[in-house]
Amino acid sequence: MKAKEQGMPQLFEVQDDDRDERELEQHPADAAQHIEGLDISDQVKFVKQLPVKDAAASIAEMDSHDQVELVGALNAGFGARILEQMAPDDATDLLEQLEENQRKALLSNIKAEDRAELKTLLTFDPDTAGGVMNTEALILDQHLSADEAVQTIRQEVEDKEIPYYAYLVDDRDSLTGVVSLRDLLLARRGAQLKDLVKTQNLITVSYNIDKEEVARKIAHYNLLALPVVDFGNRLLGVVTVDDVIDIIHEEATEDMQTMVGAGADETTDSPVNFSVRKRLPWLIINVINSAIAAYVVHLFEPTISKMAILAALMHIVSNQAGNTGQQALAVMIRQLAVEKFDRRKAWIAVVRELKIGIVNGVMISLGVFLLLLVTTQDIRLASCMGIALIFDMLVGALFGASIPLILKEIGRDPAQASSIFLTTITDAFGFWSFLALAGWMLLG
Amino acid sequence: MKAKEQGMPQLFEVQDDDRDERELEQHPADAAQHIEGLDISDQVKFVKQLPVKDAAASIAEMDSHDQVELVGALNAGFGARILEQMAPDDATDLLEQLEENQRKALLSNIKAEDRAELKTLLTFDPDTAGGVMNTEALILDQHLSADEAVQTIRQEVEDKEIPYYAYLVDDRDSLTGVVSLRDLLLARRGAQLKDLVKTQNLITVSYNIDKEEVARKIAHYNLLALPVVDFGNRLLGVVTVDDVIDIIHEEATEDMQTMVGAGADETTDSPVNFSVRKRLPWLIINVINSAIAAYVVHLFEPTISKMAILAALMHIVSNQAGNTGQQALAVMIRQLAVEKFDRRKAWIAVVRELKIGIVNGVMISLGVFLLLLVTTQDIRLASCMGIALIFDMLVGALFGASIPLILKEIGRDPAQASSIFLTTITDAFGFWSFLALAGWMLLG
Repeated sequence: MKAKEQGMPQLFEVQDDDRDERELEQHPADAAQHIEGLDISDQVKFVKQLPVKDAAASIAEMDSHDQVELVGALNAGFGARILEQMAPDDATDLLEQLEENQRKALLSNIKAEDRAELKTLLTFDPDTAGGVMNTEALILDQHLSADEAVQTIRQEVEDKEIPYYAYLVDDRDSLTGVVSLRDLLLARRGAQLKDLVKTQNLITVSYNIDKEEVARKIAHYNLLALPVVDFGNRLLGVVTVDDVIDIIHEEATEDMQTMVGAGADETTDSPVNFSVRKRLPWLIINVINSAIAAYVVHLFEPTISKMAILAALMHIVSNQAGNTGQQALAVMIRQLAVEKFDRRKAWIAVVRELKIGIVNGVMISLGVFLLLLVTTQDIRLASCMGIALIFDMLVGALFGASIPLILKEIGRDPAQASSIFLTTITDAFGFWSFLALAGWMLLG
Repeated sequence: MKAKEQGMPQLFEVQDDDRDERELEQHPADAAQHIEGLDISDQVKFVKQLPVKDAAASIAEMDSHDQVELVGALNAGFGARILEQMAPDDATDLLEQLEENQRKALLSNIKAEDRAELKTLLTFDPDTAGGVMNTEALILDQHLSADEAVQTIRQEVEDKEIPYYAYLVDDRDSLTGVVSLRDLLLARRGAQLKDLVKTQNLITVSYNIDKEEVARKIAHYNLLALPVVDFGNRLLGVVTVDDVIDIIHEEATEDMQTMVGAGADETTDSPVNFSVRKRLPWLIINVINSAIAAYVVHLFEPTISKMAILAALMHIVSNQAGNTGQQALAVMIRQLAVEKFDRRKAWIAVVRELKIGIVNGVMISLGVFLLLLVTTQDIRLASCMGIALIFDMLVGALFGASIPLILKEIGRDPAQASSIFLTTITDAFGFWSFLALAGWMLLG
């Protein structure tokens, strides 16, 4: 950008200069992508030639599978230097992924001060506020003036990750308020910090709160960061909005993938055997579940032998109810992901799904009834289909909407294998209702 | 918090005082939840007694369904005052949801300056950077010094939404750099702004880029805000991280719900008839699709009449392949949601899914083969099941992984009804392969 200095005429070509700078100063997130594309030996070479700080920033942006592989290939001394330079929350996430002996080797090479901090962070459940928080918060004495605060920040800020808020504490280290850099810039020069926060509605979260709840709180209040406190209201750390984006992505991935029995943390980069290990147990459960539905069909073999068209039509009943249920399931799971759980509201939503199921059920079964009546001229067969369809679609709506709530009430993940269980119920009920009706009305 | 002023001893009871303040100064997001719980007439009463600014902030936080209902119940004059006080991006979102005549009535009541801005914003596609950006960016002349910049910000900042970045422009209004408030606080007093951004890797987005791409960019680079520019690199506005959280939530909801043919924007609060309108068309398509699979079964009626157990067993084949395919589908859809699309990487991921399909297919079909062999002593029946299972599971893996990519390649939403199409394929192929094999090996 030399052309722009010293008031020289600015031409549009400065864009090209920008592009050169871009190559010189690669963003850690882009460097991470570059590293992920290399062979492991080239990865090691690449990070070794970077300044340690840049290497740490780049590795922090890599996928966790790739992180583990790369750090495993570094010697413990160099790995420890990298971890020291990472934000403590990123370093903790990485340490948690490693094998016990690797983690110990790295920790013993990290300088004592950082080691103590990482060890403390490792004691928090990784799925809670404590497990995702960053400990490098900017803390100010509430008795400082705005000017003194700006001076302090000027001295301290360099080491801290995105400190757009500073946290005020009293003499007992209790959190008393939050000021943003914006507040400081706007404050009267002599104003005391504690006066800036007098009417503040202080939003905090306890260290043991589920991280998804933390994400919901930050999203709900449009915060850039949320302070994490212990039961004595002492500040332990801060969860920042960029961590929240990761949490929201993770949660959405988890729901969609575990719903059908894939792994919560699978990506298209996961090794094949990792994915097999996650999915095979659920496929086995799915075989057992479909055997239950198949057993229902088996009970009606004499009926089917007499009238094989039933085997074709029963499939339409079960499939339609399955789809109805999956629509309800999808809306309920997303609701649980996006909003704070409210038991009363959740069960009202089940009633809403039943109403939708009734309307759609009546429309679809009436349509199928009429179509079959016209094409087969067999009012009994058409009636069997119509009745079984509406009943099974209602079963689908009821279970699709309530399975996530039942799972939640018994303390399980609301999405886990929900689609697999739902399909078993709609299949078994659909086969039974249609074949029993048909046996009675057509062949009885 | 009176006890805390003037250095009086601080007791732990300050917590209670905090709670009182909380009632006095309700967060707009909480006020929004409160409003949503009221009857429409009480909603109108409630917002009318609030200061217009607070009413606007609270309404901005409401769900869009509720917003539309409430604003529809206000007179156009009061509605216009509310819109004037909202952030322009929120006001635009709301206007876009309204009926044509309501929108016109409101706009004609809004003061000319704001009206012109909103009308410009309404010209952008709501699914692009231009459609989600905020126009209240803090813009500074790059020739200012850091001190002058702080002075300017002190005078201007009050009106702007979360301005943690200031944007530097040259004499032609082209964007030349971004400085954070943090940069300003750290800068040498006399430093010129343009020197602060000399080696900056400036990350911008064009106004016509899809909003999901914008969200990915902000998440990738851990930004708090991303400047939106036109083709002449002039700054049009800014997308902030709180908007990104909404976009990510919306995208995840859309994928999960449209996958099974529910509406992209349905929530548990949507009116029943809204949900019916969204879902019924896909349920009708699902009936047609299951009729295709049922037709395959119909072709084999003679086979089934002779051996009705086949109708039970064919269900296990199709269900198992369906589940295998859904696992692949879920992982692929999430990949497309989280990462920037890379065609080569995407098709490599299809190969990965085929490998997983082969391993799981061999395990499951071998298990089922052995189980059937032991229980029925019928090696031909067991072989039919084993072979049909592994073939159909591979079909499931192949189509589960590739349907989202095919949809994307033809310019459709990768998730839309993908689960419905997948099931049709796995059902039809499963029934055909199993019944054809059985007819040939057992009855031929």
